[in-house]
Amino acid sequence: MKGLRLRSRLFVEVVNLSKAEVSLEHLFKVFTKPENDDSTLAKIERHLSDNVSDFLSRHVVAQKTSLEEIEKDYMDPLIPEAPDFVSSHAEVLLKKLVSQSVNTYSPTFIGHMTSSLPYFHLPLAKLLVGLNQNLVKIETSKAFTPLERQTLGMMHNLIFEQNDDFYGQYLHSAKHSLGAFCSGGTIANITSLWVARNKLLGPKGRFAGVARTGLASAYRQLNISNLGIMASKRGHYSLGKAIDVLGIGRDNMLTINGDNHTLNPSQALKVGQEYQKRGNKLLAIVGIAGTTETGHVDPLDELADVAKELECWFHVDAAWGGATLFSDKYKHILKGIEKADSVTIDAHKQMYVPMGAGMALFKNPHDANSVRHHAQYILRQGSKDLGSTTLEGSRNGMALTVYSSLHILGKGGYELLINKSIELAKRFAQMIDESEHFELITAPVLSLLTYRVRPANLAKSNQFSDESYRTLNTEIDSLTVSVQKQQREAGKSFVSRTRIEAQQYNDQPITVFRVVLANPLTTEEDLKGILQEQLEIAQSHKLWQSLSQKYNAKIA
Amino acid sequence: MKGLRLRSRLFVEVVNLSKAEVSLEHLFKVFTKPENDDSTLAKIERHLSDNVSDFLSRHVVAQKTSLEEIEKDYMDPLIPEAPDFVSSHAEVLLKKLVSQSVNTYSPTFIGHMTSSLPYFHLPLAKLLVGLNQNLVKIETSKAFTPLERQTLGMMHNLIFEQNDDFYGQYLHSAKHSLGAFCSGGTIANITSLWVARNKLLGPKGRFAGVARTGLASAYRQLNISNLGIMASKRGHYSLGKAIDVLGIGRDNMLTINGDNHTLNPSQALKVGQEYQKRGNKLLAIVGIAGTTETGHVDPLDELADVAKELECWFHVDAAWGGATLFSDKYKHILKGIEKADSVTIDAHKQMYVPMGAGMALFKNPHDANSVRHHAQYILRQGSKDLGSTTLEGSRNGMALTVYSSLHILGKGGYELLINKSIELAKRFAQMIDESEHFELITAPVLSLLTYRVRPANLAKSNQFSDESYRTLNTEIDSLTVSVQKQQREAGKSFVSRTRIEAQQYNDQPITVFRVVLANPLTTEEDLKGILQEQLEIAQSHKLWQSLSQKYNAKIA
Repeated sequence: MKGLRLRSRLFVEVVNLSKAEVSLEHLFKVFTKPENDDSTLAKIERHLSDNVSDFLSRHVVAQKTSLEEIEKDYMDPLIPEAPDFVSSHAEVLLKKLVSQSVNTYSPTFIGHMTSSLPYFHLPLAKLLVGLNQNLVKIETSKAFTPLERQTLGMMHNLIFEQNDDFYGQYLHSAKHSLGAFCSGGTIANITSLWVARNKLLGPKGRFAGVARTGLASAYRQLNISNLGIMASKRGHYSLGKAIDVLGIGRDNMLTINGDNHTLNPSQALKVGQEYQKRGNKLLAIVGIAGTTETGHVDPLDELADVAKELECWFHVDAAWGGATLFSDKYKHILKGIEKADSVTIDAHKQMYVPMGAGMALFKNPHDANSVRHHAQYILRQGSKDLGSTTLEGSRNGMALTVYSSLHILGKGGYELLINKSIELAKRFAQMIDESEHFELITAPVLSLLTYRVRPANLAKSNQFSDESYRTLNTEIDSLTVSVQKQQREAGKSFVSRTRIEAQQYNDQPITVFRVVLANPLTTEEDLKGILQEQLEIAQSHKLWQSLSQKYNAKIA
Repeated sequence: MKGLRLRSRLFVEVVNLSKAEVSLEHLFKVFTKPENDDSTLAKIERHLSDNVSDFLSRHVVAQKTSLEEIEKDYMDPLIPEAPDFVSSHAEVLLKKLVSQSVNTYSPTFIGHMTSSLPYFHLPLAKLLVGLNQNLVKIETSKAFTPLERQTLGMMHNLIFEQNDDFYGQYLHSAKHSLGAFCSGGTIANITSLWVARNKLLGPKGRFAGVARTGLASAYRQLNISNLGIMASKRGHYSLGKAIDVLGIGRDNMLTINGDNHTLNPSQALKVGQEYQKRGNKLLAIVGIAGTTETGHVDPLDELADVAKELECWFHVDAAWGGATLFSDKYKHILKGIEKADSVTIDAHKQMYVPMGAGMALFKNPHDANSVRHHAQYILRQGSKDLGSTTLEGSRNGMALTVYSSLHILGKGGYELLINKSIELAKRFAQMIDESEHFELITAPVLSLLTYRVRPANLAKSNQFSDESYRTLNTEIDSLTVSVQKQQREAGKSFVSRTRIEAQQYNDQPITVFRVVLANPLTTEEDLKGILQEQLEIAQSHKLWQSLSQKYNAKIA
């Protein structure tokens, strides 16, 4: 168990094989003995530690290499028979993997929800692997179990603000759960709706409960035609996966739109009532805060009331926007989230921790018991093993990254970051509005916005007919797609694209640039550069010429 | 984007607040500027890099601290308002978390499937966080996408051994998938059975498919009373979760036992046929390789034939035992796995990578299409985004840890490790057999075994009646539980315990020590010490005395 004892012992029991061969001696070294300080991997590590930005800018070269080209390095389906030295493998990784990665830390990477991370996450990652705890049970995680419970409690508190007695009673209770750490928002959404389903269709009288009987039997015994889930069309695609995997079926996703394609409460109530009158039961209303594509936030406060009226579960998917609660200035946008039964938050989004830290939080600490399960060797009755109410089994100690972030950045630190992102998004929207060649499609509520290129002459104010806009938009779509691809391939910056129904065009679906201002290191200058580059690409495109000519023809 | 440019820029736009306050300046430093080499976190990191065993043995002190005692450090449900310095937070972590963790790297930690890891995983973990790719889509993962596909292909090849044409055609195909990386075996099992369910109940004629209609409607339209899944009782508890979450219901888990509580093929056929005659449809037979509690492996080859006969899916849960395929010497134990439709393997078990690397492999590259889904902003039709067929959404680049391990250890290296574990387990079984005060309950097939303490006089050969053994076993159970707990609390070594139906006692459930010999650094000497410690604890227990007296009374 002790380092030295262990090391000396190893060399006694090695199998004697020549050095070039596969040998236990070589393997034991790989398990215990780091290479010297000059090894490639050690150098990579030091460079990462010293300055991750510099490491990435030096190695993650944005080359115009096509995916097909890269794939050539990853063709062999055979596991190599012989071992390789760590150092020579590290060389390969640098050349063929790292150099062809995406620099998600770059301030000009503003297309997705992945951003630069505080540097302390690098050593923490190493500590996590060095300890390699398994959070499914206390026997392989000890102090990590209360740490995870406390972290969930802090997040619960941020959302639901219960009193001290509440947390005193439930934070470490073996019989309750304030939430579940998950690998990501999708699992958090599935977990939340699984809990909701199993609670609604729980054991009652002679009915053993859906967990035992299955859905078909539950519908029969409870006389339900169908279960449904309601959300706006802009709900994340993981809701579709959830309703599929849970056996409810995608056709039972009721989507309604309101202003900015959010879920309209009075419509929701009406549709929900009619749905239930027809012998169906609405399982849950899902409020989105905010949508992945535009960042819009559903009217949570009113939707909570609708859910109450319909007697269904209220889940809020705040995977992206949940961190807005850190900001006293902007948390009003999420008003009503405290009325939710369950909330999804991804810490690896606006809480700036590495990929893999989703959370489902449950307002009522009893609710997760609807999915409680046991086994003989762990998760025994009465144990505090975290795995008793999680969808996943073995899990690593990701909660540590959130715990440390909450302490090192503090609520105050998070507030500054959130405010900065939202305000930069507003500033960017203004820049787009001020430019005659861009058109803002959705203004930022949080730090997301969408826009597109569009020759000045084609401004909506020029009063084209709806019909001619239908055609024009198709061409502008092609231009936007082209610009997005070319900019991505040029590799200096990255803006994503999506297709949304645009309110200003009678809900015609159009293609837009999608910007997520997550990286605190992104500056106005960066944004100016991105617009400039897009305009240059657009103007050199033949579609730009033809679109301009169309205008000329019209006013001629 | 470049390190220096970026750094200098930051100091221009900082908000001027005094140093003790929350400030963007402080935050930007936390995002970009590592502390100096003398900082606590830097020291932790170096110590981990230099010698992880030494770090753990120095810090992870096995103290007799109760969970309740530890919880006192994790009581506050309030997120601190003010930020903390990284260094002082690191001190807290060392004192309150690391020191109270479980030393899963210890050679005498032989109770669960978590073991020491090759040291190169520490710098790799840092690289992963440094790059922070998101594997759901190519735009945030680029070269990691083909790397993951190749890794899945290698594992597919290890199991299914298809020819070069096959891998040439499917390895990087946008329309096919050889498998899915998952956070763990539970998600891999759920994914496999989700694919099976959606394929069996896929669109047919006027039926839109279960993914759209839901289970209840699918049963009605296809005239199915119930779906069922068949496995031995020793199937992992995640199968229960899978059948629950998928809406099939735990009552529809058909369990049958055979030799060593494995799934008996002729029984399986008979029960399956009868089940289907009653208007039900068997969705899948799940073969276990090997069970979490004893390591037994179902007769996969024959079960594959039974599944074919019953026209159902054949899934193999090889989360633990799958790595046995690396060993030419022992892979025959898993004969028939190549006939499976899907296979679960956890690389974080016997493939020695950090927690979080489960895989579901699909023999038929078309099958995963039964759960294919799209979104507007990613996972577009025809894209090679990995997220199109996975249950999870955003995921980190865990595949890298497997990719690197396959290259650095090689198939040959893995074979040595697997052989060593199995052979050490056999040797340990022999040691137990040779000791008069221990009783081997299940002999190792892979590297798992179960046993218990039992005063020599109570040996089964002494021909107690079944009835008296029923009572004796209850007392031996209490003794075994006590010994296991005391040994765990003493903290020098860890053996887990479980409760299994023991064949030698007419399937009476008894409590046993459970040993998993995963750590390649565990020696015979370690095992001798563990037995010695258990015997000492047992012999000082009052139950030991009374059990011995009972014997004396009997022969008197």
